[in-house]
Amino acid sequence: MSETDLPEPEIDTTQLDADDRLKPEFVRAVLDAVDTGDAEAARALVEPLHPADIADLFELTPRDSRAALATAITDLLDGDVFAEMNDYVREDLIDALSATQVADIASELDTDDAVAIIEDMEPADQREVLRALDPDDRAAIEEALSYPEESAGRLMQRELIAVPEHWSVGDVLDYLRGHDELTTDFWEIFVVDPAHKPVGTVALSWVLRTPRSIAIADVMKREQTLIPVDMDQEEVALRFQKYALISAAVVDPGGRLVGMITVDDVVHIISEEAGEDILRLSGAGDGDINEPIALTVRTRVLWLVINLGTAMLAAAVVGLFETEIAKFALLAALMGIVSGMGGNAGTQTLAVVVRAIATNQLTSSNTVWMIVREFRIALANGMVLGVLIGLGTILFYHNVPLGIVFGLAILINNLVAGLSGVLIPVTLDRLDVDPAVSSAVFVTMMTDCLGFFTFLGLAALAGLGS
Amino acid sequence: MSETDLPEPEIDTTQLDADDRLKPEFVRAVLDAVDTGDAEAARALVEPLHPADIADLFELTPRDSRAALATAITDLLDGDVFAEMNDYVREDLIDALSATQVADIASELDTDDAVAIIEDMEPADQREVLRALDPDDRAAIEEALSYPEESAGRLMQRELIAVPEHWSVGDVLDYLRGHDELTTDFWEIFVVDPAHKPVGTVALSWVLRTPRSIAIADVMKREQTLIPVDMDQEEVALRFQKYALISAAVVDPGGRLVGMITVDDVVHIISEEAGEDILRLSGAGDGDINEPIALTVRTRVLWLVINLGTAMLAAAVVGLFETEIAKFALLAALMGIVSGMGGNAGTQTLAVVVRAIATNQLTSSNTVWMIVREFRIALANGMVLGVLIGLGTILFYHNVPLGIVFGLAILINNLVAGLSGVLIPVTLDRLDVDPAVSSAVFVTMMTDCLGFFTFLGLAALAGLGS
Repeated sequence: MSETDLPEPEIDTTQLDADDRLKPEFVRAVLDAVDTGDAEAARALVEPLHPADIADLFELTPRDSRAALATAITDLLDGDVFAEMNDYVREDLIDALSATQVADIASELDTDDAVAIIEDMEPADQREVLRALDPDDRAAIEEALSYPEESAGRLMQRELIAVPEHWSVGDVLDYLRGHDELTTDFWEIFVVDPAHKPVGTVALSWVLRTPRSIAIADVMKREQTLIPVDMDQEEVALRFQKYALISAAVVDPGGRLVGMITVDDVVHIISEEAGEDILRLSGAGDGDINEPIALTVRTRVLWLVINLGTAMLAAAVVGLFETEIAKFALLAALMGIVSGMGGNAGTQTLAVVVRAIATNQLTSSNTVWMIVREFRIALANGMVLGVLIGLGTILFYHNVPLGIVFGLAILINNLVAGLSGVLIPVTLDRLDVDPAVSSAVFVTMMTDCLGFFTFLGLAALAGLGS
Repeated sequence: MSETDLPEPEIDTTQLDADDRLKPEFVRAVLDAVDTGDAEAARALVEPLHPADIADLFELTPRDSRAALATAITDLLDGDVFAEMNDYVREDLIDALSATQVADIASELDTDDAVAIIEDMEPADQREVLRALDPDDRAAIEEALSYPEESAGRLMQRELIAVPEHWSVGDVLDYLRGHDELTTDFWEIFVVDPAHKPVGTVALSWVLRTPRSIAIADVMKREQTLIPVDMDQEEVALRFQKYALISAAVVDPGGRLVGMITVDDVVHIISEEAGEDILRLSGAGDGDINEPIALTVRTRVLWLVINLGTAMLAAAVVGLFETEIAKFALLAALMGIVSGMGGNAGTQTLAVVVRAIATNQLTSSNTVWMIVREFRIALANGMVLGVLIGLGTILFYHNVPLGIVFGLAILINNLVAGLSGVLIPVTLDRLDVDPAVSSAVFVTMMTDCLGFFTFLGLAALAGLGS
């Protein structure tokens, strides 16, 4: 990589390759040290790593060696490491720890990270950990757990800075300097009214740039994006993206400020949610490579069985034309091209539409335009491919009717693909069904069945099988 | 949506639906006002919108009405709106503006946003705009343009706060308050040595929490992630994610601080890069719905033609068995199920692997483990489906040899799918070819050709065609 000749980040990277991934040799060195029981050596190797890299180390460590690694470097295994860790890997480790140990780790963290660690535990273990926490932490975490999963309430931290409107910049500075117990993980200050409802935000840079005497109300931004506590995290992520937010106030149904979400907690979600589509479209579920294999098999087999249904339907369509095929077996070889081309074209449209829906680019304002757009694309693609394939067939097989039937079927199936590729996901979205999960089956069904039907049907009409 | 009963964000949302998208009625109202030449009404409607929503409004406006809308609300069409706008939509509008107008807009913006607007212009227009800029802006933008596209150098803004190590917190406060020309868009302060090389960062919250007398060197974080100026933006996005960065220093090959990247510029990239995979896997190119239709057709047709090649190859395989098919046409109906099931299983594996590579979860440290994992999954899936389909066939067609051949072919093709689904993208990645772009073709080729070959071949061996 070209940046290798550039100064490496100050974060110790001798363990990292140019792409910022842990080097295999390094991982092996650590695991060898652990295997030979040389905890000191392991500690020495891992010690300089950033918590995010320690988390990666655990993910790259074979499942059955993780406990040993954890014991070897216990004191390096703090809350930040757990916060960065893949859910499944973390659950494994947590199960091996005592309730008090988990409680110690959780109490180091802001509520959002503590919740992330505790929310996936068995109810019984969860209660035990909560009991082991000090009352304040417990109250905060229990409240967070009372909100639906993947909601703003789970994502937010209660640690934030809120000041009354009538304060001056000086008051704010003195308050911040005078209270060591306050969080240091904040980028904006929220200004609240006596009912604790947010009335504005001040970026820290503004506080720093403004003389002590000025009233905070005069420097605050009144236009703010408030996040309802039960908003879905995908929605939260979209707002952070759209309005380029660094942090946002979370409000309860009464409009009172109950927490804060910072962008660093959202970037993970943005990438997860964007990546989910690709996995759902393909029926790979969450596609988490650390997921227990039995769960993965279940998810994928279910999808394959559903697709088996559509494949059998397509086979039934072919079955209708067995006599033609028996008489002219070449049809069997070529029909797959018609359905295959349609399938590919359908997937292209589907991917674009699913993505556009997920990013709020495709709304009811431009649905019709989108349908027309995809139809025109399908028509153009269909003409090009239809003529190409039709002429090719005529030249190769010296069979004009076959060429016409073949080319025509390709054109028609491209239109089928283009239209179903946009109409199916849009309809599912209107019905509040996740288009990424369920569209592909229907689109393939259309392109397979109609692909076979048009080609074999036209062939029969043209008397090709006789 | 459940949040409708909650207080709406203070950002005026009467034009927005529950999902924060512009309401179709609103868009129509604005366009009607524009059509009837009532610029005042249009202005009044658009005025309360956030720049990001004004940008969306242009994206939702039919191409041929955008210029008219722009003229109607010229004074609302500031740099922030352009910065939020889709590239293609922006290019359209920019083309309609004079060089001086573009220069005025660019000069309002931080370098990174100004560059985003100027970088896609025709060289000639670009030079004109640069001439119209004042010398400082021009120098900054010309320097940015000297870096490769999609690199940190294009992404960074030169406006940042850098202070010498020996300063006290008080010095910093006085400096910030004393210089109005300084940017207010910053979240961390960079501490530099006399050679202007970064030695640490201070989060603003720390500056605020610390007494004036303390030396900045005592509160700064020495461990920092430095971004080389020529680093690819995808790499930059991954670092921001991994280390939960709010802003990061960009350094030149000499290690000197030349700019800063803030997380709000990175969130867009995180979501783009994550979404790209899905589109590339399906051969839909960038999948930008605002892309000129001719470009879209070209991209997609190219992909379809490539796939036509693999489809013809598969057809040729089927052709080898025309005699068997002619004798036993049922084979033609069923062979599609074998290739289809394999194709689906291959796509599942492919999606998971491509995603894992893109997120740095799949590295050379766990490649072997991943291959084994996918093989075990494929084996399990293959057994389940093979037995299911085999028995089903025997029961339905009362043909034991057909059932065995069918089930066996399904099992084998699942293994082919699982192995090629992981081996092909991993190999392409090693060869520095984007696995998302090129894997699908090869995987489908494997599952199609080998699917047909195993099924029809076994059928021939079993003498099913006689």
